Amino acid sequence: MKIAIAGYGNLGRGVESAVKHADDMELICVMTRRDPAGVTIQSEGVPVVPYSDLDKVAEEADVIILCGGSATDLPVMTPEIAAKCCVVDSFDTHANIPTHYANCDAAAKAAGTIAVISTGWDPGLFSISRLYANIALPNGQDYTFWGRGVSQGHSDAIRRIPGVIDARQYTVPVPEALERVRAGENPVLTTREKHTRECYVVAEEGADLAAIENAIVTMPNYFSDYDTTVTFITMEELKANHAGLPHGGSVIRTGTTGWNNEYGDTIEFSLNLDSNPYFTGSVLAACARAAFRMNQAGETGCRTLFDIPPALLSPETPEYLREHML
Amino acid sequence: MKIAIAGYGNLGRGVESAVKHADDMELICVMTRRDPAGVTIQSEGVPVVPYSDLDKVAEEADVIILCGGSATDLPVMTPEIAAKCCVVDSFDTHANIPTHYANCDAAAKAAGTIAVISTGWDPGLFSISRLYANIALPNGQDYTFWGRGVSQGHSDAIRRIPGVIDARQYTVPVPEALERVRAGENPVLTTREKHTRECYVVAEEGADLAAIENAIVTMPNYFSDYDTTVTFITMEELKANHAGLPHGGSVIRTGTTGWNNEYGDTIEFSLNLDSNPYFTGSVLAACARAAFRMNQAGETGCRTLFDIPPALLSPETPEYLREHML
Repeated sequence: MKIAIAGYGNLGRGVESAVKHADDMELICVMTRRDPAGVTIQSEGVPVVPYSDLDKVAEEADVIILCGGSATDLPVMTPEIAAKCCVVDSFDTHANIPTHYANCDAAAKAAGTIAVISTGWDPGLFSISRLYANIALPNGQDYTFWGRGVSQGHSDAIRRIPGVIDARQYTVPVPEALERVRAGENPVLTTREKHTRECYVVAEEGADLAAIENAIVTMPNYFSDYDTTVTFITMEELKANHAGLPHGGSVIRTGTTGWNNEYGDTIEFSLNLDSNPYFTGSVLAACARAAFRMNQAGETGCRTLFDIPPALLSPETPEYLREHML
Repeated sequence: MKIAIAGYGNLGRGVESAVKHADDMELICVMTRRDPAGVTIQSEGVPVVPYSDLDKVAEEADVIILCGGSATDLPVMTPEIAAKCCVVDSFDTHANIPTHYANCDAAAKAAGTIAVISTGWDPGLFSISRLYANIALPNGQDYTFWGRGVSQGHSDAIRRIPGVIDARQYTVPVPEALERVRAGENPVLTTREKHTRECYVVAEEGADLAAIENAIVTMPNYFSDYDTTVTFITMEELKANHAGLPHGGSVIRTGTTGWNNEYGDTIEFSLNLDSNPYFTGSVLAACARAAFRMNQAGETGCRTLFDIPPALLSPETPEYLREHML
């Protein structure tokens, strides 16, 4: 199938790599809102074109994988693309998913396309894990722990503080909380009890470090509800020790089965990723495969991973999967 | 939806409990090939009827959940029931799944029913975990560890040895092997290196214990490829310390992403179950829900969890799932 990528940041590069490694996919172009001449991609011989070429790209591509931001890009661009071509996005603003779903569903149904939204690992594989765990263990309690890993949103928030040149923020699960959950204690945990936040900050020479630290640890929504540590480092240290974008985490459900709920069970799904964007890109590419297949079968409208038979995501045949993975 | 259970052993009791806890399901009867008068079930006011009433039950039930054995019962009974009613089974003889699938598919399509086969946790949730992990991490290596838990097949094999009154066999993953896999070492592991087998045996008075132990540890297919320990205990000890049927295990996939496969990732799904049959029963009941919904939507034929959109397994609406679990 012919794939186009819209948006070429970390995630775009991850999708590009996943498409390269998929034998059944061909990358036909990368679309960008920047000057295409200034965008160098990893693939040889694949054109970089302006996003304003969307109509033309939509005619040639089977699926467009949209790699923009959830805050302002995707709410507009996913329905816009769905009106012309099958599309996959990684919309992750949980509270706005119902609205985004409705907008994409209307656009996709009107155009006869499929839009797969909110995929990746959270939302995405973690959501699927929560769902299967709830199905198998209806009487229970869900826990999600993120990290240890780099939160790009939190790193960006630190960078906006005056006097900060660069920053990397790690989200870290509290080991004691994880242990209590895994032990089936079913604890009620506050935000502060579940995760800590570690910040590595490069400050301008002569900056007021105490003021920067205070601005971080008191920042509402991002840091004030957490135990946050701030460590000032040099740009060299940042580049040497914090260049990667690792992430991961665990979805845990504990609960009971039995006639009188006398048996205790624990279900856990965990990820440990050296590169968040490359892994996320891989999941988005698989969803493009499913979007193409569903659309080929005559289906239209919006889908999430909850609606997709898992076999449709795999390059293997149903016969192969039954023989080798069931 | 109206559910009937065919077969009332440990798994039948597990399904019965899951149906009791599901607000959208009603148990209409339990079918048995034994004398119904000798079968006491947990549900009050629900009839136990002979399996020979299948035609009548199939008319009243929306789905029949078949709780027989994979060796001889299911290959015959699942297609037989699929020819009359939607059916769910837990067929777990991996090598024969393609044949069983073909037989059930033909019967279900001819009758306009849905047959969901090979569900539970392995095959079942473990299969699904292998599939999603392969989809998200195409370049990698799969590992499945079972236990610590009771293998009923291995316990039965010990019971057939002359001089043995009762036995319980635990399958135990080798901790070092698990650690090496989780660390991403990608080891090649022999059968012996992955699991050990612990046997707790009650022998007849005066039995030749050395002969029993030798018969166990040298038994082909079951024990000869493993490091097996045999401990002789009294019936009282067996009842006091080994009455349960706990099980569990881990599906782990390690692999790489990145343009040149430079990033290492680990995906793990694990279960820790106090009661294997009650948990398995819960998964079978959820599959009955999906079978009913697919059939109501006009679909027919055989399905595995690979073919079922996960939302169909949940009692919640798609809107609720998107809002609360995505």
